[in-house]
Amino acid sequence: MLYDLIIIGGGPAGITAGIYSARKKLNTLVIAKDFIGQIGKAWGVENYPGFEEISGFDLIQKFKNHLKKFEIEISEGEEAREIKKNGNVFEIITKQNKEYSAKAVIIASGRDPRPLEVKGEKEFMGRGLSYCVTCDGPLFSGKTVAVIGGGNAGFETAFELLQHCPKIYILEAGDKPKADEVNQEKAEQSGKIEVITNAAVTEIKGKTFVDSIVYQDKQTQELKTLKIEGVFVEIGSLPATSFVKGLVDFDEHEQIKIDPKTNETSTPGLFAAGDVTDSKYKQVIVACGEGAKAALSAYEYLQKN
Amino acid sequence: MLYDLIIIGGGPAGITAGIYSARKKLNTLVIAKDFIGQIGKAWGVENYPGFEEISGFDLIQKFKNHLKKFEIEISEGEEAREIKKNGNVFEIITKQNKEYSAKAVIIASGRDPRPLEVKGEKEFMGRGLSYCVTCDGPLFSGKTVAVIGGGNAGFETAFELLQHCPKIYILEAGDKPKADEVNQEKAEQSGKIEVITNAAVTEIKGKTFVDSIVYQDKQTQELKTLKIEGVFVEIGSLPATSFVKGLVDFDEHEQIKIDPKTNETSTPGLFAAGDVTDSKYKQVIVACGEGAKAALSAYEYLQKN
Repeated sequence: MLYDLIIIGGGPAGITAGIYSARKKLNTLVIAKDFIGQIGKAWGVENYPGFEEISGFDLIQKFKNHLKKFEIEISEGEEAREIKKNGNVFEIITKQNKEYSAKAVIIASGRDPRPLEVKGEKEFMGRGLSYCVTCDGPLFSGKTVAVIGGGNAGFETAFELLQHCPKIYILEAGDKPKADEVNQEKAEQSGKIEVITNAAVTEIKGKTFVDSIVYQDKQTQELKTLKIEGVFVEIGSLPATSFVKGLVDFDEHEQIKIDPKTNETSTPGLFAAGDVTDSKYKQVIVACGEGAKAALSAYEYLQKN
Repeated sequence: MLYDLIIIGGGPAGITAGIYSARKKLNTLVIAKDFIGQIGKAWGVENYPGFEEISGFDLIQKFKNHLKKFEIEISEGEEAREIKKNGNVFEIITKQNKEYSAKAVIIASGRDPRPLEVKGEKEFMGRGLSYCVTCDGPLFSGKTVAVIGGGNAGFETAFELLQHCPKIYILEAGDKPKADEVNQEKAEQSGKIEVITNAAVTEIKGKTFVDSIVYQDKQTQELKTLKIEGVFVEIGSLPATSFVKGLVDFDEHEQIKIDPKTNETSTPGLFAAGDVTDSKYKQVIVACGEGAKAALSAYEYLQKN
């Protein structure tokens, strides 16, 4: 079966692309590892217009239900391993060893959490160190924990931990947190969150389970140890682009370069949308807009090819 | 009072920009003619992710309520007449003769309906000829009407008229409608909508009230007359940019040229978002994404200036 369009990814960009391609009656397949993405792990979303306050999980569920309203084929639980172009046809091989063909492809595979790359990280993964507060937060009930990273993601992780933990440190490597002012104020008002700036984490320590973090105070160069019982790493993410290496141009951060007007990549018929691209602002509403643009561009491409 | 940011426009782009600037704690004023815009006149919206089916009016109400949740100053019912830049400060004079100053400005003033520019149009405006089905549809109960324009807007206008009118013609100048396939199918299934292609309207006729349309069949060159009792013009729109002439670069359609990554215009500190720009795809979800980008770019600009 040769599809008109295959969309890789089940986050905001992929789902919006699916809604638009379904409305254009393209014969479409959506391949999605899951319908959660980064947003599904967000505690609260307050900046997606139309929903004053909603959990990331509930928002992405609404997106998913919206997509499923249309006649569109979905393969959930499947992940792309490789993508090739033969003539005008794209071939996608998945980690589940299935093969699919399509005339056009939209990559909306998003990003994976960026690792700390310090001593102890791999050792304590799943033993006190986590990259997903929505998944693991409740395991830390009654414990003092640290969140590494002072961006919005770090602060939102801390907010989610407020219901479980008596004390939460946020460690930020820079001289001030990058999070929105509203989040910084909310943290202050909580009375339970303490932000430590200029803190460069050097090691995660423990016996069978995490018991402390070592960080260097970048102002005094002093090494300091913080006693904690859990660590959440929120220092950003890396684009999920391994399966498309060699087929498109990347920027220096391994993000797929796109024409920001049309979401075309350097390969005709191959489009990209959302956080996997070199778009400047990684936001749900921006990713949705890009998904729509990518689908409309793919539709135009299919009219001519 | 010198604002950090003034946002001009109360449609999806302007509201999203407002939400984002409020979250960044910028001292912001939103100047909005209304909170309706083009989308507020849309009968049904099925492609804004998260809402499977919602009227345009209800959607923009949700957006407006979302904006008002934040601490942000809003001047509703006011319209920009002129905007100047003196040194690093923007000065905005409104049609209501008020003056405002800001360090940065986002233009999100959207578009106004494009006139037909044929004989009889001005004469019958408000006497059987309308640009807004949501406003005027019920006035045509029991009457045969024509919608001029075969894009999505034209088809959606026809759908809204189905509840009032026994027969609806859609006149499309091209050789096939530009509307989405789903909309074309829905029209066919209605049994009450007839699409006439290759129809170039040349005149609106009547006595005190519209009673017919004259159009040229572009295939036979023949002039034809269609007896109708109402006309809705849905042939697109023009960017609402008259107040900003001379201050920024435009494209050939009088749309404001932007850097599609950052929504910067050719004037530092002046940003634009949504349908007023040269963005390729005019969609609610795209306009929202642009509003977010413009606000984040304005925030970055304000950190440096």
